[in-house]
Amino acid sequence: MAHDPGAPLRVALLGCGVVGSSVARMLVEQADDLAARCGVPLELVGIAVRRPGRPRPDVPVDPSLFTADAEELVTRADVVIEVIGGIDPARGLILRAMEHGASVVSANKALVAEDGPTLFEAAAKHGVDVYYEAAVAGAIPILRPVQESLAGDRVHRVMGIVNGTTNFVLDKMDGTGAGFAETVAEAQALGYAEADPTADVEGFDAAAKAAILASMAFHTRVSAADVYREGITEVTAADIRAAQDNDCVVKLLAICERVTSDGSDAVSVRVHPAMVPLGHPLASVREAFNAVFVESAAAGELMFYGRGAGGDPTASAVLGDVVAVARHRVAGGRGPGESAYADLPIVDLGQAVTRYHISLDVADRPGVLAQVATAFAEHGVSIETVRQQAGPDGDGRAKLIVVTHRATDSALAATVEALAALDAVEGVASVMRVEGA
Amino acid sequence: MAHDPGAPLRVALLGCGVVGSSVARMLVEQADDLAARCGVPLELVGIAVRRPGRPRPDVPVDPSLFTADAEELVTRADVVIEVIGGIDPARGLILRAMEHGASVVSANKALVAEDGPTLFEAAAKHGVDVYYEAAVAGAIPILRPVQESLAGDRVHRVMGIVNGTTNFVLDKMDGTGAGFAETVAEAQALGYAEADPTADVEGFDAAAKAAILASMAFHTRVSAADVYREGITEVTAADIRAAQDNDCVVKLLAICERVTSDGSDAVSVRVHPAMVPLGHPLASVREAFNAVFVESAAAGELMFYGRGAGGDPTASAVLGDVVAVARHRVAGGRGPGESAYADLPIVDLGQAVTRYHISLDVADRPGVLAQVATAFAEHGVSIETVRQQAGPDGDGRAKLIVVTHRATDSALAATVEALAALDAVEGVASVMRVEGA
Repeated sequence: MAHDPGAPLRVALLGCGVVGSSVARMLVEQADDLAARCGVPLELVGIAVRRPGRPRPDVPVDPSLFTADAEELVTRADVVIEVIGGIDPARGLILRAMEHGASVVSANKALVAEDGPTLFEAAAKHGVDVYYEAAVAGAIPILRPVQESLAGDRVHRVMGIVNGTTNFVLDKMDGTGAGFAETVAEAQALGYAEADPTADVEGFDAAAKAAILASMAFHTRVSAADVYREGITEVTAADIRAAQDNDCVVKLLAICERVTSDGSDAVSVRVHPAMVPLGHPLASVREAFNAVFVESAAAGELMFYGRGAGGDPTASAVLGDVVAVARHRVAGGRGPGESAYADLPIVDLGQAVTRYHISLDVADRPGVLAQVATAFAEHGVSIETVRQQAGPDGDGRAKLIVVTHRATDSALAATVEALAALDAVEGVASVMRVEGA
Repeated sequence: MAHDPGAPLRVALLGCGVVGSSVARMLVEQADDLAARCGVPLELVGIAVRRPGRPRPDVPVDPSLFTADAEELVTRADVVIEVIGGIDPARGLILRAMEHGASVVSANKALVAEDGPTLFEAAAKHGVDVYYEAAVAGAIPILRPVQESLAGDRVHRVMGIVNGTTNFVLDKMDGTGAGFAETVAEAQALGYAEADPTADVEGFDAAAKAAILASMAFHTRVSAADVYREGITEVTAADIRAAQDNDCVVKLLAICERVTSDGSDAVSVRVHPAMVPLGHPLASVREAFNAVFVESAAAGELMFYGRGAGGDPTASAVLGDVVAVARHRVAGGRGPGESAYADLPIVDLGQAVTRYHISLDVADRPGVLAQVATAFAEHGVSIETVRQQAGPDGDGRAKLIVVTHRATDSALAATVEALAALDAVEGVASVMRVEGA
């Protein structure tokens, strides 16, 4: 859709929370730079909020720009920025904006991960852009590099720390030795975790981002429902200590892998806590930072690191997209749309292959190791190292710590079941995947 | 320039060395993926080389595609890939290709840094693209993120390890304690340094990349000649030990900074060895890896890490650009061209502000520290820490190690001159900048 040369582009903002406030402020404060970079001025024509009358001293715009009528606002904009979040009403507003010819920039990971194809198809139909760099890893440019810079390469694996809250919690647990509940409470007090932390600690947020990353990396539609998901609520101080003993740290990882299934390429996407060896670049990602590690055939190993959340960092990603879609409006044409041509099958977790760290409480008597080793062998899981820790003197108990070679999740699950049934095994204290070795 | 729907895009390759061979191989082996991602097939119509008859078993193409006539080849392509390097004949061929309507993808840092504006103006005139992601930091997507993802942000500083050879040498010196000459010889034996390592160890390669990064980050034309440049040939084993004593590693950094000069924004661009504190993300970049650290107003700190050289990694970046310019050919339109609207002044090194680590050989007698401290104070350079190391018993000598607060390079240079003239100072053993603190 060609644009009148020189005429300002009309920008509408949906939502004015933490991210929206930053976007509005940057649109005003950097107006000259944005105009030079877009080729035309950007004119903020309205901000849709629930309560337009509420004073917002941190948003330096004419108060008459606030409106409760988002439905009307999206019909009079060239570019609509959606930072409301959630599925509805965001989806309806985005679709309505595109019907009226607007390009859309969104930070909405939940919506893109649940129903991206509906948005992409509407964008294609109406000849507009829908961009959402801010939906994954906040300020870190990761979608554009995967979609564009690596377009001539073949991505093998994308492995990311994409949720700042859980990384903050796990990093603190690693530093203090404290347990999960206590550390979440501390994160809440510091503003790193929400009052209801479910979306973060149960891995829903990371799973949405994993779906978006996998879709782009493998040119295949992957939705949040396709992602195996395990949060960090079961990670104990003992798990963290076990990781330390194994020269690892525990991280919540979003892993998108190209795998082989029945002789053909397929995709495995999963979110779970994992031990990461200290020498791996992801191990040193501290506090609430995010990082995404990409392995591809030609480029080799790449890592992208930065702030994954927060008003200004997310607004930086939003405005980068705004400049891109604005340039397209000015020049005519669209950016690269959805690419789902590869349409690879998505395998379930059982086919995912990785290494495991298993900690067993066993009886301290001869022959136990042989029984345990046999259980692994019978399920085709090969042991890399095994370490035995005697319990307190004379209590007749010991701990066996086993690290396996690469095995499928289904083989490992069957092994763990068999181990639990052994007389000599009093309990399976923990099972954790080891990634990035 | 609109393209016939469905017709293949004709691709010409100039140069078939390490990078060119990888590009040719990937064009053939990934033809189906590339066609799906570009929207049309890419047809390799020729490879210009000096000796077309030479057998090239590693390049799986019809031998008749090789030609010595690059001038003719560029007239019959839609996309020209230039991986010859150097200024001439690359420049003439690129200009000729654009005159004939082709878009260009180049990996040529020297040419873009010396004469980029000539290429950008020709591209604008002929309505074609010129892309060069591979020119900086090999496989690492860094130009596209700076130019596009951060287009809505304000970059303060770009600080990169952008030369793999020098990072390999410095990392080895750090690990072994060996000197520069010996370590370069080892790097040459391992293929990490060229027979004539001048372009790398004297910082010319890094300076070209710094100019390109600064141009994009600050929307200002910066050429290689604007870059202050110091290589690593003077870095001694003693410097490396001094850095270790200071909890630092020595890295060759390319630094592009927004600075204030006469109350207005200006740009400082420099390449030199510097001490980097161990806690900084750049400190852990080992061997021949590259990394670029970006600080911007809204996004905060970002880092991009990966392989900076090599055939396949560089080819990955080249092909990412090929897909981008091919998409533009298919859809009509161009990517973002040069953006130099800010046109900031470029300050010389004297105005660059950083911290310094200075090591002095002094007489071991009372009053020396007072003299030294006075010299610093008289030039307005504030001392952060000073540490005194006595020499061997009774030799009457000592070492003073001073770390300064932030000061201008000109103030520091004047201080060092004054220090050298002091009776009590027998010699200025080393002066090194400290960055990333």
